[in-house]
Order: sequence, then structure tokens, then C-alpha cells
Amino acid sequence: MADKAQIQEAIKVQGEVVRKLKSEKASKEQIDEEVSKLLQLKAQIGGDDGKHQFVLKTAKGTRDYNPKQMAIREKVFNTILGCFKRHGAETIDTPVFELKETLTGKYGEDSKLIYDLKDQGGELLSLRYDLTVPFARYLAMNKITNIKRYHIAKVYRRDNPAMTRGRYREFYQCDFDIAGQYDAMIPDAECLKIVYEILSELDIGDFRIKVNDRRILDGMFAVCGVPDDKFRTICSTVDKLDKMPWEEVRKEMVSEKGLSEEAADQIGEYVSLQGGMELAERLLQDQKMSQSKQACAGLTDIKLLFSYLQLFQVTDKVVFDLSLARGLDYYTGIIYEGVLTQTGIAAEAQNGAEESVSVGSVAGGGRYDGLVGMFDPKGRKVPCVGVSIGIERIFSIMEQKAEASAQRVRTTEVQVMVVSAQKNLLEERLKLLTELWNAGIKAEVIYKKNPKLLSQLQYCEDSGIPLVAILGEQELKDGVVKLRAVATREEADISRADLIAEIKRRTSEA
Amino acid sequence: MADKAQIQEAIKVQGEVVRKLKSEKASKEQIDEEVSKLLQLKAQIGGDDGKHQFVLKTAKGTRDYNPKQMAIREKVFNTILGCFKRHGAETIDTPVFELKETLTGKYGEDSKLIYDLKDQGGELLSLRYDLTVPFARYLAMNKITNIKRYHIAKVYRRDNPAMTRGRYREFYQCDFDIAGQYDAMIPDAECLKIVYEILSELDIGDFRIKVNDRRILDGMFAVCGVPDDKFRTICSTVDKLDKMPWEEVRKEMVSEKGLSEEAADQIGEYVSLQGGMELAERLLQDQKMSQSKQACAGLTDIKLLFSYLQLFQVTDKVVFDLSLARGLDYYTGIIYEGVLTQTGIAAEAQNGAEESVSVGSVAGGGRYDGLVGMFDPKGRKVPCVGVSIGIERIFSIMEQKAEASAQRVRTTEVQVMVVSAQKNLLEERLKLLTELWNAGIKAEVIYKKNPKLLSQLQYCEDSGIPLVAILGEQELKDGVVKLRAVATREEADISRADLIAEIKRRTSEA
Repeated sequence: MADKAQIQEAIKVQGEVVRKLKSEKASKEQIDEEVSKLLQLKAQIGGDDGKHQFVLKTAKGTRDYNPKQMAIREKVFNTILGCFKRHGAETIDTPVFELKETLTGKYGEDSKLIYDLKDQGGELLSLRYDLTVPFARYLAMNKITNIKRYHIAKVYRRDNPAMTRGRYREFYQCDFDIAGQYDAMIPDAECLKIVYEILSELDIGDFRIKVNDRRILDGMFAVCGVPDDKFRTICSTVDKLDKMPWEEVRKEMVSEKGLSEEAADQIGEYVSLQGGMELAERLLQDQKMSQSKQACAGLTDIKLLFSYLQLFQVTDKVVFDLSLARGLDYYTGIIYEGVLTQTGIAAEAQNGAEESVSVGSVAGGGRYDGLVGMFDPKGRKVPCVGVSIGIERIFSIMEQKAEASAQRVRTTEVQVMVVSAQKNLLEERLKLLTELWNAGIKAEVIYKKNPKLLSQLQYCEDSGIPLVAILGEQELKDGVVKLRAVATREEADISRADLIAEIKRRTSEA
Repeated sequence: MADKAQIQEAIKVQGEVVRKLKSEKASKEQIDEEVSKLLQLKAQIGGDDGKHQFVLKTAKGTRDYNPKQMAIREKVFNTILGCFKRHGAETIDTPVFELKETLTGKYGEDSKLIYDLKDQGGELLSLRYDLTVPFARYLAMNKITNIKRYHIAKVYRRDNPAMTRGRYREFYQCDFDIAGQYDAMIPDAECLKIVYEILSELDIGDFRIKVNDRRILDGMFAVCGVPDDKFRTICSTVDKLDKMPWEEVRKEMVSEKGLSEEAADQIGEYVSLQGGMELAERLLQDQKMSQSKQACAGLTDIKLLFSYLQLFQVTDKVVFDLSLARGLDYYTGIIYEGVLTQTGIAAEAQNGAEESVSVGSVAGGGRYDGLVGMFDPKGRKVPCVGVSIGIERIFSIMEQKAEASAQRVRTTEVQVMVVSAQKNLLEERLKLLTELWNAGIKAEVIYKKNPKLLSQLQYCEDSGIPLVAILGEQELKDGVVKLRAVATREEADISRADLIAEIKRRTSEA
């Protein structure tokens, strides 16, 4: 532990940092972060007033989920889980951190966003950045050559948070992947079917699934005259087309990345193309494009993919879009992205205007046939294709929907509340409660000896508990319980022997 | 990034460290850890043979879960979740890391086991050590004064792993806590009821729930003549009674901690006591013990607790045990621990011997009325009591049980496999598959154009899929599907129109 004098010196230095930032009119975020560090230091020596001061917050870019949010989250997870299970996937789990080395060289420029753990005298560790790399590590480590698995877990990125748009530093990914040597495009088509099913079931507005292929992109760059060593950087510029207009993208290619104007214009023509199977057919006949073997392989697979998508009945939402690029290094074939096309729900609800609360991409994935081989000592490859559903943006929308609707979100599943009408009946309440619990009924009591009847009933109204079991001297004498339906306020005496069956009957109806 | 020369220098230094440890005959664990660091460094510059070498492992003290383990884990979680929901709890979630400051001063000597994140220019962060402190932080931050919540999530401790005994550095805790100002011992009794229900339902052998109270311990120390400033250190020595005999504990008290022999012997008499409500009554009459107001308050509450436990029908497993101490700083009242009393299941199964694979404590908790106040700027207290179920040890037992039993653990829920008897029926298989998926049936196909019928049927046997839907030229002509029950090998032609109803009927029976 640092001694007090050291900490006081650190506080002085940190104070200077904050003053400097403020005088420089630095961003609020940056200042907040340094102020937070200052407060933490002050807290270590007890702060100004001699009392221990806490910074009472969660870490930057993270949040707690309250019970209402958890109820919504559970609903979303159940939909996704149901779909993954319907498609016959197993599940695995991997640790939240990996050897730092495992993540190295997998994410290109984004590697700077990886959270490292402090070197406390053991291995060098990092928090996982996605679930795909740990999955590939798992396959290589256990020499697994085919599996269909899902994995729902949190991943970590030191990105600039934009919480209102659902961008956090800690967030869930729901991944479904198929590993194995199979016939072309069958597993790939299933991944798209899964995106289609989940986005339809969640009922969060209209959507499109954009599809492209890394080989088509590379072939296109080649025939347009992009030098080999610029494929990747030009690709990441193309990736920005969903955020900026073509003119700006073109400018970046030419001015910043030194591409010829002619090449840029040719790319511009291709990336404006959207269609279905017929576009793939047309491009296979395209004089220029057809010169690239790679592009032809990609286009032939796109055609095959669409034929399977027809059988899966999902072509109404799938678009072959040559502007889709996707950032990650490890993709080798087909790539895709699910995007919501509706304008923002909250904005609509609040002012009926067209103001768009864009949530953009909510699912993405592709084929990565080389990743597992990067972990295998002999470089043995395991072809993989997968999809990742981005939950946080979907949560944001579902939360806004829940708030906009009048419907109450229940946060417990309690079926019956045991209450007493008179005093001194705690023991009787606990006895009945035990009977109910032992029979598998979800039940509770107020943890007071003599709670007021009204406050007990109010609690049921507030938390949406459907039934109340009322005990009083008379009921005990008669061997009955007064069962009250909270919604209708109807009451009926039920004999103790029939009570459990009656509660089960009434709550299974609902 | 460090340059190559720096890394080579680091490799030289690390090589020395490993040689030194080996020559000193250091523990295998210590050597392994340093070797792992060396390999990681080597990997950074491409290793000896110029190829990129990976250390293909998970971080020390952590593990992956394979699909079979996940199926067992899901079963355990469902039991625990069912119990928590039956008792009317809501759930919350908190981030995996907290501001370092939030965890400071909560865990006594164990604070050294906290994982810190690297300072990457933001806030100072640590991985959560338990779910209780984040829960208290959540309550204070949101000014919540009563809630009943559960939280199932992973926590992190840089402890010495003992994986065979279920001790990991990353492990699950399943916490249930009741916060709020209520009448004495009612929520406390419910926590014990929960431990009882969960350990009974999991069916992992006989168990006991030990109960004690911090106030009884402190009172006992006082009347036995332990100086005030030694309460805590003597308490942690008492805590070792489940691992070492009294003689050794006594020696530690006297020789290491400087307690008088007389005081130690008096403590020895008390901590050998076990019983129920009648023991609490006896101790309330005990000449010495009754001198301590604190002890009397604790004993009176134990009596009250047992009266509620009788109503909850759980006294057959609960023991008032004066040797129970529990390490954590923040407990203020009742404390308890669920322990399995059976000898190891695996050992029994393998050789019928009595060899004990002790798994010890699988649940623990207590009352912590001061913790939330530590986070509140004005020190406002929120009384809390809770319990944490330690899943990893339970997993170990369940896994051993599953291995010992002949029963197969299914890792998917697939109801029907769509297969073809002849070649060139991929399209027909995918069409039928789509029908099934769209009707909510869990179904799969082999991702091959022309898989062999036998290998498709074998796949069903291996993975426990109960039904096979067989398509052939004849079936297509007749508008039927041959539905085969894998277990009995019985086959029947079902018309396409009736197929979904028939599958639902057959799989709901199972």
C-alpha cells in the first residue's frame, strides 16, 4: 500500500491534470474520467472532510440491470435461446479472460480496445473481446472438428460508450456457430435463417439482412485496380458506407489512402449494387468482374445460398449488397449483417415525428475458415460459419417499447401471497406458506409479525401477484382459507385440503 | 508494443527465473506458471523455430465447460432458480468489474486475492470478488431500502486452485438476499429454508446446516477473557476447526496469537457444543455466557430462529454449532453454512471404500446489517441477510454421478432428424426442415448433399434424437413421411398434413 504522503502527492498531480483539462475545455467525458480518478485517490486518504468518501457508480461504459430490465432481458434471451435450441445447437462456456496471447493478432486495429488484466505475478490475461476467438481456441485445444454450438455471454471492449444507442463496454453477445467440413452454403444459409427467425419473433420492427462475400470484395478490388497491399484498408473505408455518403468515402479512398480516381469510381459503381440471386448471375456475366476467379467463386456461392434461402422461406428480407464489408480480419467467405430499417420507436412514440433513433446493425457474422487453424500447432483448419446477435441494441428498443406501453412488467412469478386479517397470526401464515412452498407454489409473506391487511393487499396490487390467501380466526376455525383474486376482488372460502389444487388450477389458467 | 530486443531480454530474464525455481525444487504449480510466462514471451517473437507458437490453454484456475458439462450445469441452475423464484425473488445484474475502491476494505486479509485490471488510462477497476458487495453498492447507489433479489453470476478470486475439489479462480455464485427492516429472524429463517430446499432437491447426499451468530462468538470471546483487539484474529483461528483438530487450533491461539491457556481452554469447551433450540436455552442460563449482553441477544435470536425453522419443517438438518465462525468481515448477526456430510460419491462408486472426497461447504451466508451503510454518503443502514450457493463443488459431484451412472446426458433438445433414403433429396429435406422449424419443432439435417442413410441414423442414436423423418421418392409421391422411432426402430407412414401434430404428440409423451 502506498503511504499517505505518496497519495497526497498523487492527488496534487491529478488535481493539476483536471484543472488543465478544464482550462483546455476538454470533452466532458475526459474531464469526468480524470475527476473520478481524483476522487478515488481522495477516498484512499479519507477525503477532505476526514470521512471515507466513495465514488458511488459503476465503471465507465457499464451499467446495472434492475429487476424490470432483467425481466425484459429474460424475455429476449428466451426467444434467442428457443431459436438456437430449435436448430439443434449444444452450448459451451469459456472463461471471461483468456491468455493475452490468445487474443493477439485477431482483431486488427481494434486490438487497442482489449481490456488487459494487471500483471499480479501470474499469466498475462485479457478480457474476451468476442466469443468467436475463444470458441476457435476451444476447438483447437480439444481437437474438435465438428460442432454446432451457441454461447450467450458478456464480452468487453474499451470503446467509446454511447449508452443511449446501446453501445456499452460490457455487453452480451449471443453466438451460434457451425464448425465442420460440410457441403457449401448449407450451414451458411441456416445462420441467415436464424437471424430471420429471431428478428421476426422479437417483433422490433422491419429488418433487412445484407449479404456479401469477402471473395467478391477482394475480386472487385482486384479488377478495379486496387493494389494488393491496399485491399484491407480500402475494405475498411467501404465499411463506412452505412455511416457516410459515397462522396466522403470516395474522398477518403483517394486523398487519404492514395487510390486512383478511376479505381475509386469503378468501386463506386459496384458498391451501389443491391439485389438477389439475379444480381449474382448478372455479375457472373460482368466483363470485368468475371475476370476474377475469387469473385466468381463468391458469386457462385451467393447463387447457391439464395437457392437454399428460398427453401428456408427467408428471401423477402435478404439483400445481396456489395457495399457490405464488415471490419473483422478473420472472415474468409460469406458475410452478413442484420439491420433494423425502422425509424426509432421512442422518437415516434413521443412526438410522432420521423426523427430517427438509429440502432443500425443488430446481428452480424460470416464464414471464418482460417481462425481455428491459427490455434492449431499444425495449422489444421476447421471451417466455421456463425452469427452473433447484438443484444444491447435490442434491449434498448424493447425497454423503450415497454415504457411506451401501459402494460406492467412483472419482476417476480409469485402466484399467491399469504396474509392475515388479524394480529398474532404470523405462525399460521408461516405454516401455510410452508405447505405452499412444499407443493411447489410460488408464494410469499410480509416479514412482519403484524402487518396491516391493507398494506398486504396493496403489495399484491403493486407487484402483480394474482392471488391472496387470507387467514383469520374464523378461517382457521373452519379449516378454510379465503382465496381472493386480486384483479376482480372476488373472494371464496376454500378448504385447506383443496387449496393447492385450486391455486394450481387458477394460476395455470392465466 | 515492446520491440524485439526488449522481448528477447525479457525471455533471458524469465529463463533464469525458471532455471532458479527448478534448481530450488519449487512447487510444480509455481514452475508451471513461470514456464507459461516464458512461452508467452517466446510466442511474441515467434518462438525458436520461427513459427508462431501458442500456449493452448485456459488461464490458470479456469476451465471451459463442454456441452455435457453445460447440460449438467443447466440442470443445477434450474433447480436453484426454481427455488429462488418460488420464494418470490426478483433478479438484478451488475458488471463483472467494479471501481477498485468499491471493493476496498470489505474482505479483510482476502483482499490480496482480488484481480485488478491494468491501468489503461481510465478508472482503476477490479473483478468482483463476490456478489454481495456489488449488491450493497447497488442498493446504496439506487437508494433501495427493501428488495428480495437473486443473482447468479461468476466471481473471481486469485486463490490457489484445487480443481479436483471444485476450487477455481473463476466460479459461479448463486445468491439470494433479503434487504429491508423487518421483524427479527423471519427473513433469516427463509434463507435457511432455501438452503434446505436446494440441497434436498439436488439430491447430492445428506447434509447439515450449521448455524451460529457473530454476537454469540464475540460474547463468548469476551467472557472467556480474549482481549477486544484479538476478537477477529481468534475468530479466524476458530474458523479453521473444520480443517484441523482442536489441539492444533488451540496451539495456534496460544503460541502464535498469544492467548492465555486458560482462555483457550474455555473457548475449547464452548466451541465443542452443538445442538438445537435447547442448547440456546441452556447457554442463556450459563453463568459465564449470560454475562455478555451481546451473547444473550444472539442466543435469544437463535431461539426465535429455531421456532420459525420448526414451522418451515427444516429442523432435522439444522445444527446450532458454536464452532462455526466464517471468514468475511461484514457479517453482523446470524451466520450459517451448508455442508455435505457424505463421503465422496466417486470414491464409493469406484471401490466401495470409505475414502472421502470431501467437498465440504456448499452454501454459506449470514446477516450483514452494516455493509450498505458503508456505501451510503450519510451512512444510512439497510439490514440485509442472504445466502450464497457454491455451485462448483455441486457440479463436481453431479458430474461424478453422471459419469458413474450409465444414463446418457443429452446435450441438445432435438426432437426429429430429417433424413433421406436416396440421393439428390437435399432440397426436399430442407423444405421439410423449414416446415418443422416454422411450426416450432426442434429439428436438424446433416449438412451434406448426399449423406448415407446409415450415418444419418447413427447420428440420431449417438445424440439421443428420438424421431427420424425419412424422405424417399416413394414417400414424396405418396405425400407422406416415414416417421421412425429411434429407440424401437418402429416406422410408420404419416401424411404430410398430420406430421407436425404427430411429432408433437410423440415428443410430449416422452
